[in-house]
Amino acid sequence: MDIINLVGAAGGIVSSITFLPQLIKIWETKSAKDLSMVTLMFLVLNVSLWLLYGILTNLYPIIITNGLVLSMVFIMVYFKLTFKEQ
Amino acid sequence: MDIINLVGAAGGIVSSITFLPQLIKIWETKSAKDLSMVTLMFLVLNVSLWLLYGILTNLYPIIITNGLVLSMVFIMVYFKLTFKEQ
Repeated sequence: MDIINLVGAAGGIVSSITFLPQLIKIWETKSAKDLSMVTLMFLVLNVSLWLLYGILTNLYPIIITNGLVLSMVFIMVYFKLTFKEQ
Repeated sequence: MDIINLVGAAGGIVSSITFLPQLIKIWETKSAKDLSMVTLMFLVLNVSLWLLYGILTNLYPIIITNGLVLSMVFIMVYFKLTFKEQ
């Protein structure tokens, strides 16, 4: 099980920071026109389902990782709505 | 376990199609300048780790879902490199 746990832990860390560079890029360029709002909505749904799965199974690493990712996705949606015409 | 399996199945289906609207949008606009290449690289790493996890644990739904997502992420990277100056 050791390699499986290691892969899981690495995946959790990478997941948590995946959308941070995208957030920074949108903030710096004040442009999000190329981002798909439908994909952002799917991400909200998807990460929410993961969060729900984590809550139902009491898996704290899944709750923390997906809580962080969901916050970043919500900020991207806000940016997309705010910077949409640039 | 029924609700957990249901949430998992819904998550798998949503995951598989998450990046399809983004792919279509880039193809139609021929523009991917707002997408972060660092985030795309994190997605490659992240989805590859999930694929590895699926292979190590023999979970076919995880292998199929993440195989599909990885293909779409690779196409986005290709689009990002191809359409980068527009």
